[in-house]
This record gives sequence, C-alpha cells and structure tokens, in this order.
Amino acid sequence: MSGRFLGCREAEAGSRAVLLGVPLDATGCGRAGVKDGPAAIRQASQFLEEYSLSLRADFREVGVYDALDLSLPPGNLLGALKAIEDEAGQILATGRALLALGGEHLVTLPLVRAALARNPDLRVLQLDAHADLADEYGGEPLTHATVMRRVVEQVGPGRLIQAGIRSGTAEEAAFAEANTLWLDPGTSAGLEEARRALHGHPVYLTIDIDVLDPAFAPGVSCPEPAGWTTGEVLAVLGALADLQVVALDLVEVCPPADAGGVTAVAAARILRDAGILFFRP
Amino acid sequence: MSGRFLGCREAEAGSRAVLLGVPLDATGCGRAGVKDGPAAIRQASQFLEEYSLSLRADFREVGVYDALDLSLPPGNLLGALKAIEDEAGQILATGRALLALGGEHLVTLPLVRAALARNPDLRVLQLDAHADLADEYGGEPLTHATVMRRVVEQVGPGRLIQAGIRSGTAEEAAFAEANTLWLDPGTSAGLEEARRALHGHPVYLTIDIDVLDPAFAPGVSCPEPAGWTTGEVLAVLGALADLQVVALDLVEVCPPADAGGVTAVAAARILRDAGILFFRP
Amino acid sequence: MSGRFLGCREAEAGSRAVLLGVPLDATGCGRAGVKDGPAAIRQASQFLEEYSLSLRADFREVGVYDALDLSLPPGNLLGALKAIEDEAGQILATGRALLALGGEHLVTLPLVRAALARNPDLRVLQLDAHADLADEYGGEPLTHATVMRRVVEQVGPGRLIQAGIRSGTAEEAAFAEANTLWLDPGTSAGLEEARRALHGHPVYLTIDIDVLDPAFAPGVSCPEPAGWTTGEVLAVLGALADLQVVALDLVEVCPPADAGGVTAVAAARILRDAGILFFRP
Amino acid sequence: MSGRFLGCREAEAGSRAVLLGVPLDATGCGRAGVKDGPAAIRQASQFLEEYSLSLRADFREVGVYDALDLSLPPGNLLGALKAIEDEAGQILATGRALLALGGEHLVTLPLVRAALARNPDLRVLQLDAHADLADEYGGEPLTHATVMRRVVEQVGPGRLIQAGIRSGTAEEAAFAEANTLWLDPGTSAGLEEARRALHGHPVYLTIDIDVLDPAFAPGVSCPEPAGWTTGEVLAVLGALADLQVVALDLVEVCPPADAGGVTAVAAARILRDAGILFFRP
Amino acid sequence: MSGRFLGCREAEAGSRAVLLGVPLDATGCGRAGVKDGPAAIRQASQFLEEYSLSLRADFREVGVYDALDLSLPPGNLLGALKAIEDEAGQILATGRALLALGGEHLVTLPLVRAALARNPDLRVLQLDAHADLADEYGGEPLTHATVMRRVVEQVGPGRLIQAGIRSGTAEEAAFAEANTLWLDPGTSAGLEEARRALHGHPVYLTIDIDVLDPAFAPGVSCPEPAGWTTGEVLAVLGALADLQVVALDLVEVCPPADAGGVTAVAAARILRDAGILFFRP
Amino acid sequence: MSGRFLGCREAEAGSRAVLLGVPLDATGCGRAGVKDGPAAIRQASQFLEEYSLSLRADFREVGVYDALDLSLPPGNLLGALKAIEDEAGQILATGRALLALGGEHLVTLPLVRAALARNPDLRVLQLDAHADLADEYGGEPLTHATVMRRVVEQVGPGRLIQAGIRSGTAEEAAFAEANTLWLDPGTSAGLEEARRALHGHPVYLTIDIDVLDPAFAPGVSCPEPAGWTTGEVLAVLGALADLQVVALDLVEVCPPADAGGVTAVAAARILRDAGILFFRP
Repeated sequence: MSGRFLGCREAEAGSRAVLLGVPLDATGCGRAGVKDGPAAIRQASQFLEEYSLSLRADFREVGVYDALDLSLPPGNLLGALKAIEDEAGQILATGRALLALGGEHLVTLPLVRAALARNPDLRVLQLDAHADLADEYGGEPLTHATVMRRVVEQVGPGRLIQAGIRSGTAEEAAFAEANTLWLDPGTSAGLEEARRALHGHPVYLTIDIDVLDPAFAPGVSCPEPAGWTTGEVLAVLGALADLQVVALDLVEVCPPADAGGVTAVAAARILRDAGILFFRP
Repeated sequence: MSGRFLGCREAEAGSRAVLLGVPLDATGCGRAGVKDGPAAIRQASQFLEEYSLSLRADFREVGVYDALDLSLPPGNLLGALKAIEDEAGQILATGRALLALGGEHLVTLPLVRAALARNPDLRVLQLDAHADLADEYGGEPLTHATVMRRVVEQVGPGRLIQAGIRSGTAEEAAFAEANTLWLDPGTSAGLEEARRALHGHPVYLTIDIDVLDPAFAPGVSCPEPAGWTTGEVLAVLGALADLQVVALDLVEVCPPADAGGVTAVAAARILRDAGILFFRP
Repeated sequence: MSGRFLGCREAEAGSRAVLLGVPLDATGCGRAGVKDGPAAIRQASQFLEEYSLSLRADFREVGVYDALDLSLPPGNLLGALKAIEDEAGQILATGRALLALGGEHLVTLPLVRAALARNPDLRVLQLDAHADLADEYGGEPLTHATVMRRVVEQVGPGRLIQAGIRSGTAEEAAFAEANTLWLDPGTSAGLEEARRALHGHPVYLTIDIDVLDPAFAPGVSCPEPAGWTTGEVLAVLGALADLQVVALDLVEVCPPADAGGVTAVAAARILRDAGILFFRP
Repeated sequence: MSGRFLGCREAEAGSRAVLLGVPLDATGCGRAGVKDGPAAIRQASQFLEEYSLSLRADFREVGVYDALDLSLPPGNLLGALKAIEDEAGQILATGRALLALGGEHLVTLPLVRAALARNPDLRVLQLDAHADLADEYGGEPLTHATVMRRVVEQVGPGRLIQAGIRSGTAEEAAFAEANTLWLDPGTSAGLEEARRALHGHPVYLTIDIDVLDPAFAPGVSCPEPAGWTTGEVLAVLGALADLQVVALDLVEVCPPADAGGVTAVAAARILRDAGILFFRP
Repeated sequence: MSGRFLGCREAEAGSRAVLLGVPLDATGCGRAGVKDGPAAIRQASQFLEEYSLSLRADFREVGVYDALDLSLPPGNLLGALKAIEDEAGQILATGRALLALGGEHLVTLPLVRAALARNPDLRVLQLDAHADLADEYGGEPLTHATVMRRVVEQVGPGRLIQAGIRSGTAEEAAFAEANTLWLDPGTSAGLEEARRALHGHPVYLTIDIDVLDPAFAPGVSCPEPAGWTTGEVLAVLGALADLQVVALDLVEVCPPADAGGVTAVAAARILRDAGILFFRP
Repeated sequence: MSGRFLGCREAEAGSRAVLLGVPLDATGCGRAGVKDGPAAIRQASQFLEEYSLSLRADFREVGVYDALDLSLPPGNLLGALKAIEDEAGQILATGRALLALGGEHLVTLPLVRAALARNPDLRVLQLDAHADLADEYGGEPLTHATVMRRVVEQVGPGRLIQAGIRSGTAEEAAFAEANTLWLDPGTSAGLEEARRALHGHPVYLTIDIDVLDPAFAPGVSCPEPAGWTTGEVLAVLGALADLQVVALDLVEVCPPADAGGVTAVAAARILRDAGILFFRP
C-alpha cells in the first residue's frame, strides 16, 4: 500500500540497511522491461509476511530503509553508471548494508566498485544462469553480457565465485577456467568449496534471478532452461548465512514477461530471506 | 462440453458423492477472482482422461454428481456461510461424500461445521502454504486468514493436522505449536505421524492449491514461493489413501492469475485422483 | 533476427541435417495454435547460445540447414500427410538427418513412414505424457490421439518404446502392455532397458513437449500435470547419446497458451542439445 | 452458469429457433482458436441482460433452444461440412430459424446449402472485412478465403450482397464487380440499395465479426484495420429489421486473441439483438 | 513513482480537494478485481502530463491531496459502507471537494449519503452503461446492480439524471421512466436538458467507466457493447463545466481484465480533466 | 513466413525504396519494448493483402526492399544515432525512398538529419499524441520527449507541422505557438492549411502510432486517451497523397503492451497504404 518493500522503514533515520531500486535497462538483449523490476518486486512483496517462518525471524528486525528507485539520466549510460556508484558509495559510507534491485545485470559493476572502494579484499559471489564473461558484446565493453568480465578486472582473478552457470560461449568457459571459480552448491563439496573461498573476506553477492529455471522465473529478459528451483536458491543462501556480505543485488526481473507474477514474488522472497540471513543484527 | 466436471453424472439420482462449487470471494487479500475457480477447474478437466493411469481406476466409478455452483447472496457474508453449511449438511445427510471447490479458503469453516455435525470425532487435514491461524484479520474474525483458527475452535485442539505450511506470523507459529500438528509428509516419519493422528477417525481434507509452488500453481490469490510440486501432492494423497475421508475441499484457484491455465488443470488432476483414492467403492 | 533457428545455415548446400517446420494443426482437441509452434521455437532460440555449456560443443558443428516451414494444403489432411512424408523422404534420401518441429503429434506418422522406408529395422522412442494409442478418436483413425497406434501398425509390435506416459485410457494401457514398452528413464534400470531395446537399431525419436510438467511447459494443447522437468529430459537424452538416431521430431508446442514463453525456449534448448548429441559428426 | 447462451431454453420442445455452435477450425490462416468461439460467446453473454433496452424487447420471447456445439469429425473436412449441412437441414426442416456460431467462415457454405434447399430464391447478406471470394487458397477450393465464391456458385450471381468489405485482392475485386453487390450501409443510399436487393426474398445473413475494427474485435483470426464500430453494426441490422431472414451465422470469434474479452461480448450483443430483430414472433 | 495520483500533493495541509481510493469489491457479478482499480489508475496517471492541453490548465492548481485507499473491513459490507460514509463526511466537512475512486459502484451510495447530509438539495448525475436501478439482486438490497435505486430513495425522485444507459431490464426501464431523467448528451437538446435539471443545485457526479465502449474500456467487470468513446465523455464533461459539483466518483475499473491498460489511463485522463473542470479555483 | 514485411523484395537490386527497422529503445519512459516494434509490424503484415482495396493499388508496385533491422551498439546512444543517420544517408543517396520503423521516437532526429542533408528545404509533418517539444528530459537533451525540439533546431522554425497533438506541457505549448504549426486535419480548413505549408517542398513524415486512441493502439509506451481512429489516419494520409514525401517513419509500437496485436496490424496497414500513396511510381 505504501509502495515500499515489505516491512521497510519509511524513514531513513536509524536504518541499518538501505534498499535501492536501480532501474537500468540500457544494454539488454532479449525481452525489454527490467527497468520495472524494482516496482514489481515491491508490489509482489505484499503477498509475503514480514516474518520468515523457515528462518523464524522478522525482516523488520533488519531495519531496512527503502530509498525507492534511483533516478537515472535517460540514454546516458556512463552518467547512469556513475550515479549508481556514487549513490552506493554514499550508502556504504554510512556503514549500512546495501540491497540493490535491478534493472539489468550491468548495475553490478558500479555497485561492486562502490563496495570494493571500502573493502579492498572483496570477493564476489554470483548466482546466475549466464557467465556474463564476454569481453565485448555488440562491439561494446559495458553491457549485461560483459559485466562479470569487468568485475573480474576490478576485483582481480580468483575472486569471483560463480554458481548456477549453465550458459556461455566456449570463450567464456575458457576465461572462467583461468579466472573464476565455478561451483555446484547443490553438492556439499561445492558448498564447502564456496565457504572456503569466501569465508573471512567481505563478500558482494549478486543474484541474477534467471539462475532459477524459467518455470520458477519466466519473467526474465533471457530465459535459460534447466535451472534451479526457488527452494534450492534459498537453501544455498541459508548454507552460506555465516558469510560477511557487505552488499547484494538481485537483478533481471522483467515484469512484462512475468506470467502469473511468479518471478517477482520469488525475488521478493529471496530478498526478504537474504536480508534476514546476512544483515540481521 | 457439458459444463460439468470430467466424468460427472448429470443426474443426481444414484450418485455416491456430490461435487459442489462454492464461489465465495469476500475476504481475500491478494489477487481477486477465486469465485471463478470452480468453473475454471471444470473446464480444465476436459484435458484429462476419466481414467487415472497411475491409480489404474476410473473416476466414473466414484459416481459423482456435479451440482454446479451454489448460489450465494452477494455481499452478505453470514448469509453465504449459512447457505454453504446448510447445503453441505443436506448432502452429507444423504450419506454421500462431498467434494467442494472454492472459492476462498473461508468456505472450509461452514463445510467443516457441516461435517462435524455428523462426525463429532472429526480430524482435519490441511495442505496449504499458509497457516491461516490468525485470530483476526483487518479487524474481522471471519476471513481467509483466520479460517483454520476458527476451525480449531470447532474441532478442538490437537485435531488439525497441517502440512506444507511455509508462511505465517510469529503469533500463528506459537498458536500452531500449542494447538495443531505440523507435518512434513515428504519424509516417511512425517507421513507416519499423519497416519497415526488421522487413522481411525473421520477426516475432513482441505487442500489450498497454493500448497503448490507458484511455478506449478501461479493462479492463486497469494502466491508463496518454495512449495510442493503437483507430483508431491499426489504422492502424499496416495500414501494416505486408507484414511476415512468424509468430505474434502480444494480452494483458492484464481483464474485471472492462472497464466497458461496450469493451476486449474493441476487442481482438476488432484480432485480426480483424490476422488478415486478416497471415495471409490 | 534471420528468422531461422539458432546457428542454422541459411544455405542448403553442404548441410548434414535439415530442420523442417511441419505446422499441422488439424485434429487437435484442447487448445489451438500448434501450427505456430515452429515459428515460436525459432524465435525463442535467440535466447540461447549456439554453444552448449553442458555438452561442451557447438550446435553449428552439426551443420543444420533450416528449411523453414513446409507449406501444407489447408483443410486437406491426407494431402498434408502425403506432403510431409514426401518431403521427409527426400531429405532422408540425401543421407542427411531430419529434425522436424510440429505442429500436432499426428505429423509423427508420415515422418516415421519416411524413416521406415529407408530403415526397415526402425525402432521408435517416444517421450510423451499421453500414450496416443487409441484406435480411433471422434470416429477418425488419423488424429493426434491415435498416432502412435498407427505407428505401431507401421513398425510392428515391440518396437515402440514409450517413456513419460502418465495419461491414457484403460484400453490404451491394455494395448500398450501387449505391444509397446513402457519405461521409466528416471531409474537406471529403466534407462538400461531402453538402451537394450534400442541399441544397434536405427531409431526415430519423437518428443511431445507435454512430457514436461505444465510448470515447465504450459504452452501445449493438452496439459497433463505431474510430469518431468526440463533437466530430466536433457539427462535422459544425454544418457542415450550413443543411440543411432536417424530422425527426430519435437511436437505440440502451442504458443497462444505459452505463458511467459517458457515452453518454446525449453523446446529450443532440447532441440539444440538433441541435435548435438545425436547428429554431431 | 448453465453453459448455454443468455436466456436460451434448455428444452428443445416448443422452441421457435435453434442456436447451434459449429466449431470448425480447419482451413484458417492467421491466429488459431475459432473452434472455441461458440463457448466464449455463450460465456460472455452472461454480461448482458436478456432484455434489449434499445429494442425494448426480450430475447426470451424469441424462444431459442441452444443445441450446444455440433460434434465434428477431427481432421475430416468433407465429413464435417456434410455434418453441418445435415444438422442445419434438419433444424430448418422443422420450420425453425437457425442461429449458427462459428467457427471459421467456411461453415457458411454448408449452412447456405441447407437454407437454399428450402429457399431456392435465397439471397445472402454478408457483413465482413474480407471479400472471401478467392477461387482457391493454398491450392484448395474449400477454405475460409474462398467460401463466398463457393456461395455465389450455389445461389447464383447477383444474389450475394457484401457490406463492410475492406480487404481483397485485385482478382476478388474484379469478381465482385461482376457477381456481387458491394454496399456501404453507412449511407442511406447504400441501405436503400440493400433493402431493394433483399426485400421480398428469403435472406441468409452471415456476419464475420472481423467486420468490426480490431479495436472493437481484436479476437479474430485475421484482424483488418479501419472497420466498423459495434454500434454501426447494430444500426445496420436495425435498419434491415423487416427482412425475411431464415437463418444467420456469426463467425470467426477467436478467443485466444480476444484481449479483454471484448470480441465475444460484442458478438453476444449482436446475436441477441439480431435474434430479436429477425426472429421475434 | 510516489505511488500517488499524478500531480497530487503528498501533504494534506492546504489541500482544496481529496482523492480517496475506495477499494470495495463485495457484490459484483462479472469479472473480479475492481478493488485494484484505484492503484491501477494512480499508476496509469504517470503516462499523462499534469497540464491538460485541451483545457490549457494544470491539475496541480486544483490542490488535490491523495489520501490513498481507505481501509475496509474484509467481508463486512455494512461496516465498509459506514466507513466510506464516515470518511467522506469528514472530508466534505472541511469544505474540500471529494474525488473518489472505486471499487464497485455500490460505493456511490455511502458517498451520496455523505454529500446529501451537507447538501440537502443534491442532484446526482450518473454516466453509466447500466441503469443499476434493480430493487434487489440475488435477494440482496445493497449491490452494484441496485445502487442507483437506493440513491433515488435517498435524494428523492426526479433528482437522478442518467446518461449513457444502454442496459437494463424492463422493470428498470419502467422505474426510470417514473423516477429518473434519461438524457442523450450527444445531442445539444440532451445537454440542454441536463443543464436545466442540474444548474443551480449542488451536484454529485458518478462515472461508471463502463459508460465507455469496451473498445475504450475493456477493463470493467461487466462490459456492455456499443458505448461512448473517451473523447465523447470528455466533451460532455466539458459542456457541463459550469455545474456546481461537490463530489464525484469514478468506479468499476477492473485491472485484471484491462488488456493493454487502456481503461486505467482513460480513467486517469477523465479524472484529471474532471478535477480541473469542476474544482479549479 | 519470410520474416520480411508484406510483399517486400528480398533482393536489394532494383528496389525503389527501402524499409529499415531501427530498434532503438534507450530513452523511453512508460512501457518498455519498442525495440521489438519492427519485428511485430512485419509479423502482423501477414494478416493483410499486398493489394490495397481502398487505394486499388498493390504495395508490390512500390518496389520496397526490406533491409531488416539495423544493428545498434548496445548502451551507446550517440553511436546508435550516428549509425542511423549514416545508414539513412546511404539509402537516400541512392535516390530511393526510406520507410523506417521504430523503435522510439528519438530515431526521427538522425533520420531527419539524413533527409535534410539532401533536401535543405525540408518540411516535417508529425502525426503524434505528444508534442515532444521539451528542451530537456531527465536532464538530457536527446530523448523521445525532446526529439521534435531538436528537429526544429535542425530544420528551422515554421517548418514543423504537428497534427493530432493532445499532450504537452505549458512550456511546450508556448514553444509550439512560436515555432511550429498545429493543425486539425479532421477539418477541411486544417487539411488545407497543411497542404499550403507543405506543398512544393520535400517532406519528411513521422507517424508516432500513439496518435491513435489507445483503443486502436494499446501497444505504445505512453498511451494518451482521446485520439484518432485508424480510419482517420488513413483518411488524412489519403488527402495528402500529392505531397512530395522523401522519407517517413512510423515509431513507438510497443509489442509487450499490444493486447490482441491490434497496434502492430494498424501500423502495418498504415505503412502499406502510406507506401503506396507516397512512393508508387
């Protein structure tokens, strides 16, 4: 009713974390509409309780202020990326955690840059169907398809952990072999490996909602079959609850393709539970 | 074609069970439209065979008369609840089983009352994503969110078995701990516990279709992620086939949100198989 | 962009396999629109990479020419079936493999006839929710519901292997028991049995996309709940990669019912991976 | 609720007219789904009153029996056309009027044949966006695109009056000039000409719902822009109320394309008012 | 972005009018979902400019405070009607104008009661497809179908002016003849008659959005063909700009049926222009 | 079937005009998806005949080559605008006419620049609901909302003729008064004025499809009620057939919002008829 995400504070004062919509939709292939993702996730959150029955904890305890959507200059990509990095930097500078809602996956680059500026030892954990490790896309370096390559260039090789990847080119696979860690968190060995790689370091978590199977998340720009269930995503996050996450994003919810609205509500559930898991006092 | 549910008798005489639509849509939050659930389920049943291949039995052997939808007084909730209880009572008084199609979950209250009047030792088995155990909702005692609290007040503590619950408030969780039995029928221990609690007693079965994951049932008023598959619901029902079910309902199918029509056909399949499992001579 | 399936050659010369749309929609019950299935699958293939990350191989290596849709005489069923058989026969006569996209399942009959003419020892492997073994449907012998009965009459008893079947009449079940092999490829025993039955013989593979659960494939004419996941279909195909498949079809994608477009992209993924598995040099 | 058209009698005895669904969908180009047109029109009729406020008369006075949908042999076009002609012939033989609901426009051919058999002096009035005067379509003589050419061959040149036509080939335009009468009933001169051509003769009226602009009737197989409003169709029918219509059809409602359901309800309204105008005692 | 209607003030202090959502959806037949009408209209208003180019005036000059949606007790119709009347009464008591957004048409009854209490000489102008003059509906006196009968009982005969009515029963037509004034504002005579009946009196204006043709407003619970265009509604309101409107409502926008969202934006446009026409200082 | 627009040549050689898709979707507010407009219009053109019955001429006589969609660098707006201007310049340099399909309205700027380079005396005729005359939008000068202001800066004051405008700010209205000509082509005076302003000069024609009422064109990014019918647009174009149009565009078709597909087919019809009217030899 308030237009804000479930159980979020309407006042910024005293908040311990900030939820920020980042409605960038500039370089996508596939289906258009991810700029409306944050609004759809906020609206779908009304179907949920603030209390997580599985975690036996209340999202309101996290103390999240919903700053609504960041205003981005239309058609000005570099300006938009700078605005995102600046805003994220200001939030993180106050010592609060950041929960960002995309928008397209390219938003992860300025968000990681802001987190890295305050956490030089940063690791990045990516849940995604696509590797996003191309060096260029359509001749351009800054796109949804190249974003994690740019992130690796920022954080350094060996510091990006990728899970759920089921789509990429041969070139991306070769790059990943040399520079990132591919995990299967569906196995205890995979989970253990993730924990080893991430534990003791500040972590940036990026969740591309298309890590879910299209049955569970039809509302994405590029659906990729044979993915995870929502329950599996929640289980992986739960198993990693002791990580020191400093910021996270959830991207690529595409409302015009979201038949039945199931993607937005899955995203809202994942956001609620991730907020509790990683940011509850 | 006939407008009736798959393989149902058009004549009441000689029937052994009655299918009744109960199109109540009065207290819902979330998405509107559950009043059209019974019609959608009837229409979707045309995709199915009367013969259940997994059960190797034919729904027509059950002898179900489809009484179409009960006419409810618009805007008069107490009148509607009374009409439902009266109609259900008259059906049960003839010794026939009742299969009711909602409509919102509040219809379970008058239906249980009618079943309880003839079966004082009644147990209730609820498959649902939501506990529905609030004491009031929006200031009102009779709503979809409070219905199972009212049912507990009718049948007494310890007689409501809940399975699939993955959403509720801290207060509902506390009430459930003291008054109901939460089971995980995905485990053999959970199933065994259910059988112990229900065996030897008359049973009322209520299935809120949102016990399914939104991937399998997008067409509900309040989707709750991370639920069951249709196959899991059928397996649980199959494992409980020896219960003495006297009446059942299947509620909350919401056609306007039912992308691809998959919810209605899942409901039709569950209804067909439940009818065979519990009511075949 | 080209209007052709992902990574297909636009020139026929030098191709090793042919993709052919067969937009028949003449005898269906359920939801109309399977004639638009091939176009929807081609369009959805743009979401995928040509490279299969799980198979570590590129679909372009297969050398598939996309011949677009076969033109069928409107309202003339026998003429259409003959046109399909003739066209398939001409393709197979060049020694190339055939990948056909339905359209309704009846297209499998002329396609099998063309394959049988060149492979008298042919076996048929059917992944499907429905047995399609009725002797007549609506009084007619040539329909989507009778097609595999007609196929058995062509290839002979014991040479049709059916997997995924979860809907059929008592009569179809009896016919199947005597004439076909029902397998559960979800078990290693089932897979082993399939391999024993098919190994060393030329194989025709027909995939009715409704073998998937409606959650994974809402866009079908007759949804049947409690089916497979897309991952399970891919796993079964992968386990049978050493079969000598001479032709395959993928049928019953129904775009008007395909909420979120997930069925078409699942079909595109299955087609890409099956092409690599069975037809890569 | 009854599954029948608004205010229709469920008993045949004593009826003065018969409503018959003719769900043929065999030769269409464009969007599939007209076989579900009759069911959608019946369901949409629930939005209307039986009483026509503009005509100050009640549809129930007409005494229409709704015979539901004719069963047609799947995939057997000639068999289907014969079944339609036979059924229509039997109805007309009892002296009752016929209101047929398509289905594709080809159904008009057997319906006209049945009417012509009892009314050798028959005229045909066609409201349609498309001339439907091609000599063959896809190589076939019996299709939705050739149906009125076949009708002219039945009734003879000069006896088909066409209104609303805004799409056709140069060949169709030439044939029309020689063989049919094109009217603009939006002018009083056009209406007068229609009355002159039809008055004193038995009339068969066929309404292709795509005579409406796609804004008023999106749910058609082949939308053609720049058409009539629903009010204009009703005005034309009202102006011709004194014609001696012996049978009528309303065809091409295509529910899968019927965004917002507005086409079905427009069709229901036209059918209700046409029934009153032409068949009230 | 703010979640409020276009150009509305977020602070109540200093406002000259109040916009109030009244999400009642209790007695409707037809399609469910009018409770979400106010939210959809607010969201659609983002497509518009605050400045009305045709009126050469800015909606912000009106000084409207958007009070968001009134909270209504679920399932308690009498409680809801009382809450609406109380809230409206409090707003009108401050001397501000009221713009109410339904919800179903029954909300007009308590709103008129509140206006009548402060304006005993009140006239009511209704733009609607349906007369809504039934004495009871489904056995109940308080429904969307009886609301204007109840209104006549409140304001007295001869004080309800109805325009656009094209659906009603014979009984309603007879009641209207005796008790209300039916106008055709499409003619200058009709407009003149309306002005005569309303001029010099305080006026309550109720706009049922289904006065529009379903082409212009598919998103309604009960579509009725052959209605007005949006331009015609705006022209009628413009011609009546000198009336002394004290409150108005716009009801029956039904988002789940609103294909393309055109109904909500038409409603937003009508509301913006009506606000300027009747309430600008 | 060919994936090209109705009746277009697949070979460039010998063409007299070029159809070019320009899928820019970079600065839009409102609903996303106009990048898929050209593909949707091509697909919808299959519903039409190449022959225009109203114009008694065939689109194939125009000799249009469909060059498919221009490839644009993702996220690089200036690069995209340059690519569009270059491509258009090369086409116009061959002496052929250009028919461009958007994409968002900003594409008109580089297209006009290319036309102006070869026609210094260029006039621009804009059919649109929105003035698009803002000086900046979201702080940026190059957007869909500022495009015609930039065009005026290119062609000079008094050379932009705007028709259908019904949305704009007070500032835009003031700018228009001083710099552009607003016409009402629904009147003969308005048409005459347009002819006077345009006759004897080379003309660039830009049609924003939202000049249509949302009933006729729901599939746009920013629907604006109370617009034209498709027939009215065709009539205006017909009345201006003697203009010397050197290039035209049709923009803002937004497929994800295009309920029932009526916008795409209206656009296809307008494009076909405009092509015949302005470019037939």
